[in-house]
Amino acid sequence: MKKTLLLLSLVAAPALAGEGKWTPQQVLELDPAWLKAQGLQVPPERLWDPKRGTGLLAGAVNVGGCTGAFISETGLVITNHHCVFSVIQEHSTPQRDLITQGFLAKNREEELPGKGSRIQVPRSFTDVTKEMFAVVPAGADDLTRQKALERKEKELVAECEKRPATRCRVAGFDGGVQFVLIDSVELTDVRLVYAPPRAVGEYGGEEDNWMWPRHTGDFSIIRAYSAPDGSSAKYSPQNVPYKAEFFFPLATEGVKPDDFVMVLGYPGTTFRALLADDMAERQARYYPRVVDVYGELIRILEEEGEKDAAGKIAVASGLKGLHNRYKNAGGQLAGLKRGRIVEKQREAEAAVAAWAETRKEYAGALKARTELLSLQAEKAKTFEREFLLDMLKMGAKGPSLAVTLARLAQERAKPDLERRPEYMERELPRLKDRLEREQKNFFAPADKRMFLALVRRAQSLGEGERIAAIDKHFGRKYVEKQVSAKLNALYARSKVMDLAERLKMAGETEAQLRARKDPLLDLGLDLAAEVVALDELRDRRAGANVRLMPEWRRAVMAHAGKPVAPDANSTLRVTFAKVKGYAPRDGAFYTPQTTLSGVMEKHTGQEPFDVPGKVAAAAEAKKYGPWVDERLKDVPVNFLADADTTGGNSGSPTVNGKGQLVGVNFDRVWENVANDFGYNPDVARNVNVDVRYVLWLLDQVEDADGLLRELGVRKAASAQESR
Amino acid sequence: MKKTLLLLSLVAAPALAGEGKWTPQQVLELDPAWLKAQGLQVPPERLWDPKRGTGLLAGAVNVGGCTGAFISETGLVITNHHCVFSVIQEHSTPQRDLITQGFLAKNREEELPGKGSRIQVPRSFTDVTKEMFAVVPAGADDLTRQKALERKEKELVAECEKRPATRCRVAGFDGGVQFVLIDSVELTDVRLVYAPPRAVGEYGGEEDNWMWPRHTGDFSIIRAYSAPDGSSAKYSPQNVPYKAEFFFPLATEGVKPDDFVMVLGYPGTTFRALLADDMAERQARYYPRVVDVYGELIRILEEEGEKDAAGKIAVASGLKGLHNRYKNAGGQLAGLKRGRIVEKQREAEAAVAAWAETRKEYAGALKARTELLSLQAEKAKTFEREFLLDMLKMGAKGPSLAVTLARLAQERAKPDLERRPEYMERELPRLKDRLEREQKNFFAPADKRMFLALVRRAQSLGEGERIAAIDKHFGRKYVEKQVSAKLNALYARSKVMDLAERLKMAGETEAQLRARKDPLLDLGLDLAAEVVALDELRDRRAGANVRLMPEWRRAVMAHAGKPVAPDANSTLRVTFAKVKGYAPRDGAFYTPQTTLSGVMEKHTGQEPFDVPGKVAAAAEAKKYGPWVDERLKDVPVNFLADADTTGGNSGSPTVNGKGQLVGVNFDRVWENVANDFGYNPDVARNVNVDVRYVLWLLDQVEDADGLLRELGVRKAASAQESR
Repeated sequence: MKKTLLLLSLVAAPALAGEGKWTPQQVLELDPAWLKAQGLQVPPERLWDPKRGTGLLAGAVNVGGCTGAFISETGLVITNHHCVFSVIQEHSTPQRDLITQGFLAKNREEELPGKGSRIQVPRSFTDVTKEMFAVVPAGADDLTRQKALERKEKELVAECEKRPATRCRVAGFDGGVQFVLIDSVELTDVRLVYAPPRAVGEYGGEEDNWMWPRHTGDFSIIRAYSAPDGSSAKYSPQNVPYKAEFFFPLATEGVKPDDFVMVLGYPGTTFRALLADDMAERQARYYPRVVDVYGELIRILEEEGEKDAAGKIAVASGLKGLHNRYKNAGGQLAGLKRGRIVEKQREAEAAVAAWAETRKEYAGALKARTELLSLQAEKAKTFEREFLLDMLKMGAKGPSLAVTLARLAQERAKPDLERRPEYMERELPRLKDRLEREQKNFFAPADKRMFLALVRRAQSLGEGERIAAIDKHFGRKYVEKQVSAKLNALYARSKVMDLAERLKMAGETEAQLRARKDPLLDLGLDLAAEVVALDELRDRRAGANVRLMPEWRRAVMAHAGKPVAPDANSTLRVTFAKVKGYAPRDGAFYTPQTTLSGVMEKHTGQEPFDVPGKVAAAAEAKKYGPWVDERLKDVPVNFLADADTTGGNSGSPTVNGKGQLVGVNFDRVWENVANDFGYNPDVARNVNVDVRYVLWLLDQVEDADGLLRELGVRKAASAQESR
Repeated sequence: MKKTLLLLSLVAAPALAGEGKWTPQQVLELDPAWLKAQGLQVPPERLWDPKRGTGLLAGAVNVGGCTGAFISETGLVITNHHCVFSVIQEHSTPQRDLITQGFLAKNREEELPGKGSRIQVPRSFTDVTKEMFAVVPAGADDLTRQKALERKEKELVAECEKRPATRCRVAGFDGGVQFVLIDSVELTDVRLVYAPPRAVGEYGGEEDNWMWPRHTGDFSIIRAYSAPDGSSAKYSPQNVPYKAEFFFPLATEGVKPDDFVMVLGYPGTTFRALLADDMAERQARYYPRVVDVYGELIRILEEEGEKDAAGKIAVASGLKGLHNRYKNAGGQLAGLKRGRIVEKQREAEAAVAAWAETRKEYAGALKARTELLSLQAEKAKTFEREFLLDMLKMGAKGPSLAVTLARLAQERAKPDLERRPEYMERELPRLKDRLEREQKNFFAPADKRMFLALVRRAQSLGEGERIAAIDKHFGRKYVEKQVSAKLNALYARSKVMDLAERLKMAGETEAQLRARKDPLLDLGLDLAAEVVALDELRDRRAGANVRLMPEWRRAVMAHAGKPVAPDANSTLRVTFAKVKGYAPRDGAFYTPQTTLSGVMEKHTGQEPFDVPGKVAAAAEAKKYGPWVDERLKDVPVNFLADADTTGGNSGSPTVNGKGQLVGVNFDRVWENVANDFGYNPDVARNVNVDVRYVLWLLDQVEDADGLLRELGVRKAASAQESR
């Protein structure tokens, strides 16, 4: 950041070693002696140079919603296998099944360009808090405030993106204590260099997802290219490997228990600054409702998929997403309870409030908190309605696509800067992609049953929470036969689920859509009116939040008297951690490392535990090469650390105190899902691929001599005697 | 033992610390220095005095197939809750539900006599090997040999049991290397003193059975009474507490990891002396067939039970037994594979054979092994037939009871000493019990379907393995409708499943049974003929085995050059162990102790995890009293040790180096089921109730002052400040 924002009087250590997704700037506010004691060997200024607004941390880059890391001067980037899966899929054919076989480019010519692949490398961070708030008219109401901030944000981004190959955003921290304009260069010539077979990269599949002990080689290697002059450029054979200023050389010695590590990356969203009442509401209503509704949708998709082979394929992707969120919600609930997270938040909040009571300058903070609490109580009254309206926008494809088409027509009628952000010109290619892509996930019988289930729920809402469009199209009372008949008629007479027609609709005005007299579209237009009203209500709430929350957060931070890491917001963060196991329950302890022998122990020959032949052969022959861990007497595969991660940290580099890569983050453990609400040091563990497993695969299994040389690793091993 | 049998030239340490179910005599053959180094603090002669043929080990007593232990001079015995469950059941009524509430006798008058309860206290061990073999005529064939040995065994037992209140048996060791006559006094006035609520004694139920981490209070306390002169006597109010010479005072300080412990008891059966080929056969065919057939029977009972509430209750007990053996078979297979047990046995056997090759005196051993191998190969040819014939004797009640009645009539016609042991007069009360008891487990629809499943399997047997009775009554080919119709007719026209008629049949001669023209009885009589032939074949095999196996075993023992513990045979044994956790799989470690907090962590309020209110209240109030473990800062509940146990060790006292009780053994871990075939030090773990959990319950939950005083424990705790 170009300006120092939180000029705290003291440079302090955080409360818990592993806790905190620190912003680059905050690293410099932490006590250097503490960082050194933890195990950081490079000076903090190498991690982040405040004068230049960049540093080693910028070696961690954004790879389409995941994180990746430069690991060579020649543009090589390591990330998760699941983060570049679409590129592997793109180049796979039944004749050349890269998904199953894996892929290794023998030379640069063989590397495979990824169609939509993009890497964003952060270039600068600028505090724009003052500029943002300057646009809010004095005495503005909450909606006006929010609209003004949104408008300013769009203008800042548009200005910033005038520079070629640039992607910008304004990120809010701590509910609006600070706004930062982040300017990144976007590299669009990205090519696949190495991917292990899926049975390595996804070993354990859904069964092991969120779990420990883990044995997954969830990594792949890609390379970023630039024009010969170093600037970002579209794919061209003339392009040259991108020369990254910051990268993480591989630490061939790996890690051992209690070693210091840092995990760098782009964590998505966390909820630690929520007031306890808001957390409690999520625990009491939101996650249970997710379990309830998603559980029903999962049952429907599974049952319908069983009846039809093609249907099963169509619903697979939707099912995977539902399962993931369903399992996540269960984990949140279990973790909130086990970690007593809401109770702890309530205690912490009460402590801040008691402290503020005695300090005049925080009278505003207390008032803000009171108002936030009443806003929360107000919002809770229409929780069920909003949950269902959101589900109608994303559950069944029929209503969801109809609403999208309606909203698209309405928003496209406005000047770009006045549209809702998701309908601005810069987003339209992504939106059209989705309109097209959804076709292959559509399976009519399942879609209708899901819609039916949502209608049934909507019809049972209380008087103050009715969804007018549902009442209008299906009546106020659920009678299965009638609703089902109406639904069938709706789908039968609509063209929304016809791909060609839908793409045509995407270009039409609202009047044209209405003229079609398409019954599903008409329903979509009616729902859209309620969506617009809800969006406005939420804007109003956001305006209130940005007015109130910063006041409260400033009290929280002052009370802490040391740096407090803001909630995750998909911006660059670093977390300081130790390699360490944990006790999942009484009588059991999870050790922090797993091994190649453990991979073979799980091998059944059946998915998801089907070790590829060449991997199994090397493992069974104990062809370990130099990648054996002396203590484990085995090749390490995965390890745990108590880093503070969340979704978006997929593919994050895990580096040692010297700034060398020791692993690639790819998951959290089940007991640590509720980490999003509060850090529980007993169970906060992230899961990493050990760099020695990466090296073992490249060296002993793939004979990837060239790639290893480029990574600065001598391929002496094959000549060596194996153990 | 009154004579020293294995005069090995060296007194040695066993190969693996935890391995070996040592006979009392063998304890004296182990190196005393090694025992001391392990942690034994009393001299080995206190464990067993060879001159008297008894010692502290005899404090471990036989409690109806389980083990128990005297823990006071006043006849108090501790064993497992599941071992005295029938007594608790006997005294439970809907008005006074002792199963659910548990039971504590406030004074001696309140103690509850158990109808069939018996405790056997070993009195003397006499080597009878010479006497046994002296009766075998020179040149006898295998069948004659076996019959002569069986006859002699019966005579020795009859002679021994002339003494009042005496129970005797002849036990064979190492396949016939040695025979020992064991004389025990049988105490028949046994009364219940304390049982915890079932939700403590069976906490975790089937779900946690064989599992770790475990949190079960599987113990109860009973008391043995004798006539005022100290002799065994039937229940009488005049009886006095039995004065046990040997007992184990409670070690109030408990255990900690790595502590030395001994587990004493009556392990049932193990198979470690089997030749590798025989083990391989069990791995390849026997256990998979158990999984297959028992799995089918379980499905049938579950499906039929779902259809009928009374039926569900009737099949519950059968289902529990099937589940237990089914789960056991799965564990044997997993453990045999994981421990490479057959392979190791093959290597060990090859080493003995190679060693014997160079020693003329073991030429006979090698010949014996060759003959044993060919007998094994011969036996394998009719494996499927024998398995099914055995199942017909114990699967469905219909055929099983019919065969029993037929055999009973046939055997009762002979003089007592000529009958098969299970039909001798001394066994008839137990047999009649069974004929009566089975009625409450009978549910016709399930029984018929099980029988049908067995018939179907019998009809698919190969040409050389047909079961003639099945062919005769159901035809050679399975046609479901026809077989099912015949089966229905069989049950409809038979009186075997009528309790009163059946008990009458039990008193009839074979001629009388035949005159009944009862179709199920007729089938039973036909099956009985095949059972008799198979019994004779098995006697012949046993005769061969007792001729050959001792020769081979003597070579094995000589090659070992140190004591080798014989396979378990329900006689008194001791195993030396350490308190210790284990790694169930890569990346996980099971710590060796669990705690009261862990009990509460599992508590769901639903069976089998429904902690009784008074226990939960004390746990939540952290009312630990003096029973807290300083290291765990909690009340210890269960612990693991690497003792070498098997079925029959249920209720075994686990004692420290001073001979004080530190726990009560009640299970093995899942990974250790195949321990019956070979000791795998990595996973050989038995599960014990920690004595401090016993004491905590008696003290902090039950306020059992009197009982505690009798156990030599001062009830100072209630006065003390709780933590």
